[in-house]
Amino acid sequence: MTTAPWRDPALPAADRVDDLLSRMTLEEKTAQLYGVWVGAATDGGGVAPHQHDMTASFDFDELITRGLGQLTRSFGTAPVDPALGAQALARAQRRITAANRFGIPAVAHEECLAGFTAWGATAYPVPLAWGATFDPDLVEEMARHIGRDMASVGVHQGLSPVLDVVRDPRWGRVEETIGEDPYLVATIGTAYVRGLESTGVVATLKHFAGYASSVGARNLAPVRAGVREFADVTLPPFEMAVREGGARSVMAAYNETDGVPASADPYLLTRLLREEWGFTGTVVSDYFGVGFLETLHRIAGTPAEAAGAALSAGIDVELPTLRCYGDALVEAVREGAVHESLVDRATRRVLLQKCELGLLDGDLPEPPERVDLDSPANRSLARRLAEASVVLLDNPTGALPLAPDTRVAVVGPRAHDPLAMLGCYSFPSHVGTHHPEHPMGIEIPTLWESLRAELPDAKITYTEGCDTSGDDTGGFAEAVARAAEADVVVAVLGDRAGLFGRGTSGEGCDAPDLRLPGVQAELLDALTATGTPVVLVLLTGRPYALGRWHGRLAATVQAFFPGEEGGPAVAGVLSGRVNPSGRLPVSVPHAPGGQPWTYLQPPLGLAGDVSSIDPTPLYPFGHGRTYTDFGWTDFTAPEATIGTDGSYDVEVTVTNTGERAGAEVVQLYLHDPVAQVTRPDIRLVGYRRVELAPGESRRVAFRFHTDLSAFTGRTGRRVVEPGALELRLAASSADVRHTTRLTLTGPERVLGTERLLRCRTEVSEP
Amino acid sequence: MTTAPWRDPALPAADRVDDLLSRMTLEEKTAQLYGVWVGAATDGGGVAPHQHDMTASFDFDELITRGLGQLTRSFGTAPVDPALGAQALARAQRRITAANRFGIPAVAHEECLAGFTAWGATAYPVPLAWGATFDPDLVEEMARHIGRDMASVGVHQGLSPVLDVVRDPRWGRVEETIGEDPYLVATIGTAYVRGLESTGVVATLKHFAGYASSVGARNLAPVRAGVREFADVTLPPFEMAVREGGARSVMAAYNETDGVPASADPYLLTRLLREEWGFTGTVVSDYFGVGFLETLHRIAGTPAEAAGAALSAGIDVELPTLRCYGDALVEAVREGAVHESLVDRATRRVLLQKCELGLLDGDLPEPPERVDLDSPANRSLARRLAEASVVLLDNPTGALPLAPDTRVAVVGPRAHDPLAMLGCYSFPSHVGTHHPEHPMGIEIPTLWESLRAELPDAKITYTEGCDTSGDDTGGFAEAVARAAEADVVVAVLGDRAGLFGRGTSGEGCDAPDLRLPGVQAELLDALTATGTPVVLVLLTGRPYALGRWHGRLAATVQAFFPGEEGGPAVAGVLSGRVNPSGRLPVSVPHAPGGQPWTYLQPPLGLAGDVSSIDPTPLYPFGHGRTYTDFGWTDFTAPEATIGTDGSYDVEVTVTNTGERAGAEVVQLYLHDPVAQVTRPDIRLVGYRRVELAPGESRRVAFRFHTDLSAFTGRTGRRVVEPGALELRLAASSADVRHTTRLTLTGPERVLGTERLLRCRTEVSEP
Repeated sequence: MTTAPWRDPALPAADRVDDLLSRMTLEEKTAQLYGVWVGAATDGGGVAPHQHDMTASFDFDELITRGLGQLTRSFGTAPVDPALGAQALARAQRRITAANRFGIPAVAHEECLAGFTAWGATAYPVPLAWGATFDPDLVEEMARHIGRDMASVGVHQGLSPVLDVVRDPRWGRVEETIGEDPYLVATIGTAYVRGLESTGVVATLKHFAGYASSVGARNLAPVRAGVREFADVTLPPFEMAVREGGARSVMAAYNETDGVPASADPYLLTRLLREEWGFTGTVVSDYFGVGFLETLHRIAGTPAEAAGAALSAGIDVELPTLRCYGDALVEAVREGAVHESLVDRATRRVLLQKCELGLLDGDLPEPPERVDLDSPANRSLARRLAEASVVLLDNPTGALPLAPDTRVAVVGPRAHDPLAMLGCYSFPSHVGTHHPEHPMGIEIPTLWESLRAELPDAKITYTEGCDTSGDDTGGFAEAVARAAEADVVVAVLGDRAGLFGRGTSGEGCDAPDLRLPGVQAELLDALTATGTPVVLVLLTGRPYALGRWHGRLAATVQAFFPGEEGGPAVAGVLSGRVNPSGRLPVSVPHAPGGQPWTYLQPPLGLAGDVSSIDPTPLYPFGHGRTYTDFGWTDFTAPEATIGTDGSYDVEVTVTNTGERAGAEVVQLYLHDPVAQVTRPDIRLVGYRRVELAPGESRRVAFRFHTDLSAFTGRTGRRVVEPGALELRLAASSADVRHTTRLTLTGPERVLGTERLLRCRTEVSEP
Repeated sequence: MTTAPWRDPALPAADRVDDLLSRMTLEEKTAQLYGVWVGAATDGGGVAPHQHDMTASFDFDELITRGLGQLTRSFGTAPVDPALGAQALARAQRRITAANRFGIPAVAHEECLAGFTAWGATAYPVPLAWGATFDPDLVEEMARHIGRDMASVGVHQGLSPVLDVVRDPRWGRVEETIGEDPYLVATIGTAYVRGLESTGVVATLKHFAGYASSVGARNLAPVRAGVREFADVTLPPFEMAVREGGARSVMAAYNETDGVPASADPYLLTRLLREEWGFTGTVVSDYFGVGFLETLHRIAGTPAEAAGAALSAGIDVELPTLRCYGDALVEAVREGAVHESLVDRATRRVLLQKCELGLLDGDLPEPPERVDLDSPANRSLARRLAEASVVLLDNPTGALPLAPDTRVAVVGPRAHDPLAMLGCYSFPSHVGTHHPEHPMGIEIPTLWESLRAELPDAKITYTEGCDTSGDDTGGFAEAVARAAEADVVVAVLGDRAGLFGRGTSGEGCDAPDLRLPGVQAELLDALTATGTPVVLVLLTGRPYALGRWHGRLAATVQAFFPGEEGGPAVAGVLSGRVNPSGRLPVSVPHAPGGQPWTYLQPPLGLAGDVSSIDPTPLYPFGHGRTYTDFGWTDFTAPEATIGTDGSYDVEVTVTNTGERAGAEVVQLYLHDPVAQVTRPDIRLVGYRRVELAPGESRRVAFRFHTDLSAFTGRTGRRVVEPGALELRLAASSADVRHTTRLTLTGPERVLGTERLLRCRTEVSEP
């Protein structure tokens, strides 16, 4: 008996796939292009609004005789012991392989935004907290841990990272982003991709592209953006994660931009992604996103038309359903409405990826007997990330660290709720809250508990004061009484993450403005009125307006959902065990209205005197204080003239001049004084987190390439323009320590497709 | 002595101008391209922030030896008797003509947003109130009155109308717009242009284009918009006003869109405006807008570079200064940085317009001895407009009209202030408030005064309750006491118009959200808590969120700054003398946050269940109640199949079935079920205001041309797409009375430059 070429692991993958494809029926090919969500409620009700095409019931056993492209979130739907989950997944894979003629298993995919979204798996800090660390290495290490855990239970693909750049802080999914600067998002996001991909798990870049820019910050609302903003702000993180990170999957976004749904945009999904950037992996839909072309965007009149639009634009896989890519697509091909070559193109990509993943080789790995998805190593890493992410916004009178034997009144709805530490894509928030009878699977010390552990000699009381989002002020009296008896109040306020209006932050939990939710602002007013010094601790998924209390707080600590070890991390900052080192990845505004605003503004967006609304933030992007001091000396950055295709070195020595170990974040910003189109006043083009012992000095060198000054010019192409530039070494976007002026000479240079290879500033410590 | 050809009125204007141009020095040519603002403070401080290049002092007598293009706002800077003003202007013109070699006077331009912005001139309702009338004929008549008054005192050009389409109701200049629908703005705005131009006064379309879309609704902030939104929403009013209205001037907008300042955009100012639309008039800068290219946009490094960028893009005239188009431009031409042909191009346009205006013919008209800019005929027209513009939002229990002998407590900061009736571009608000010692020049009865006149038998008290924008609640107690003693409360709340933060509405008075200003919301809460029925009257420049009081008010009346006769008009609605007939030109939202939003949304923008923020308005676009009832019968609108270049007739009979004369506004909306790009769920494509005596019937016929279904397709060109359409006859955007389905057959039709000629639905009463 001869072996079919596609079964021969010695042959090139492309040849194997060509052979396999030639043997498949149309039904078998399309079956590779969709997933099913076996565990989910068939009415989709537990998932999200508009996600009702799960009602298309199917007979799994019959269905899989065609094969099956994807298995959706076996671990993500209900609290199951991960070893049992792995065994169930393995059984499902055996059924699938046994049922189809070629014995091909499905790609098993899961969410892993801030850790594997499975019961019992480590809940790391959310991406906004990663942004605050300014530490790509730590994020890459975390992603490796996540990938290893997922691979250990049979998962092939993770639906992360989110590379959306914050454009309106009211948006509910701000917690899932890395921040409001494309360079920060690109570098941290690419580190995540490298970490995950290094374990063999496919990383999925999302949401491609523009989703964060929805008008009014309403989830899924249309996006109003021009091509220049899209190219210069929205796309760079994706480009870096494809080119440098080697991501093998991209998820098409739900949104429409200027009337064109991303899921039906061939420019985006094919010309840019594949032809310009050289991406060769799979493009998957966001959940139900293909069907939305019919039901929400109305650019298709039927599921078959939606399938045709999505497939021809470049979506290879419909998740997590077969509403459009199932029989509707088969019929459309048979009727001639969709060309079969489009099916072949998508199926080839899916099969190539399965080939790479070893899924055409016939062996199914045995599931593990026992699994620990929250190992001590994970926990330690979660702690390190959490500690590095806490931002000390202000400490004007040195109220922090707290004295060891002080009397502390801990007050607030976020002080003693484990869920206060988690974003909406953690398992306990995302799914676990539907199963309150089930323990959440991981230990999550609250801040109150953690503070008692940190300060055993202190007298620490606790009262809730109010709910996170309700309007009941009945608890204020007790809160005020506790405050009056204490030396210091620690007010722990913020968000409760949830889905679609069931929280104050998270997917579909968009804020009308940046007031603290519920009556928390009024609680804080009441506490500050007592005269007892108030330390405000925010556990949130987005920045909130704090101008109302400016000058009235003893200290302000901002943590973005810091994960399962967030309690000890924040308590460590309060006690002084941890020297705070996070920096803001988003601006903290003065006032709650007048949104949207981020720091990435051309001069016109900074002008405060032409409008009654002054957008200047209270705490700027990149800001964060510590318990030590840093000296910046010995700048090497002479004025220079270089070509439009050159690089330039900037160096500085940073010294810890205080008495405690700590970390400084050296930030490099670019200012372009005059250009053919308006440019952001400044934007981040490099950064380095530097850990320093007391008295220690380190030299930090940046090699800035002129490619990074490129922007989309008048003609729509990316250009490096001759003329003056300024590079600014800074401790925050508003705290510049040294400015140097460059002059670029030569003709305007149009960047080709190689451009991003030098769009990262090299940083070293010579 | 032979006469130079340019002096010969018998020759064609183009020949005269060519000859004249050939005789001019470079200095003389550029002198035609700027204006000076003789009366303004030289530091610009009284005008606006960033407008400091007035400090470039000049010797007027020396300057005008070169000639002078424009004289800026002789009437607009200080309260002067208009006859004296006309004489002063005439003297200035005599000096100018005497000083330059050719004896050419300046074009004298003035603001005339809602009436000639001069002391003693009629203050008509603001444009947002025109939108509420849905009555282009009345607006055209008003513009004729305005034009005649301006012409009578020597003014050649009026800097109106504003054709910006509302994109964010928080914007301070919403009061200056006609509303949130491009078709309404286009048709009413074009009527204004026709009226003004019919008097020989040049109309100036502004702000071209995109200014209303500034991010966060902050005045002058950058605009984030795609080309499709720009083409399909922002531009249509300008196109109609150029093609159908015959406007002879266009003002370039301050804003930048997707990085490109309008003032430096050759696509906008030349290719589109002139080459596609056939515009032949002059393009003027917004005040100081050329200089802003250097100081605010930073696309130019010097005034000369700004001049070059603006001139080559297509700005012919710099207003109201010579910072860039003066010596800076002359030097740039001499140095070769700007080609002289660009100066010639602009100067030719200016001289052609002067030739048309008779300004090359040597005669200067004698100024009038006596002038009445607020004639009884003006007042009567102002009254008719005001009465037609008042919108009765709700009257659930028939609380209105008020009984003649009732006890009324009039409460509120807007009840007894004449300025409550005026927008920021009225003379008293714009300039007069800097001269409090001077009477405002026109009589403006307040609402309290007017109501006492309307209801002589009623007992009417008045108390202010609170300031418009302050936070003092000290007056609440008296307000509540008055309310308790009355049968009904008339709460008169709203805006005070001003400039740059000196008001709650107007240029530079942007709102962070749509809460009523100051403590007015709290005052209304206190009044409704008394149990006395409360009639809310809003005198505002924008819509405010009213959901908080839904179901708690006896009636709600919305007037948008209704002008000098607004007091009697609103009082007439309260008394019942006037049957309210205004319809909303902007949506009134439930909640103050979550902006921006207007009714022009694709399906995705209407979805309420995917976000915690439901944008559905409290009162929809087109909504307004009356004191009578209307029957809609005998629809003639069969399902039909027509070509993509066809038209379709819809007819309906409207009958006044009540007992009072009144006006119904028949509205025609277009719904496009499926298209290649996402489309607004509905948009206005026709309307007719119909005045009906009790029992009277009238038939209204609409001829809809398929051109009006066009939109910017995937390729960037305007197309009429085959497929299904729905036409909906409706009493508001949410009150559809009849739907008919059309099928367009044939190939997709790409519209050429003729397209707008059929982009108005013909309406008749057969």
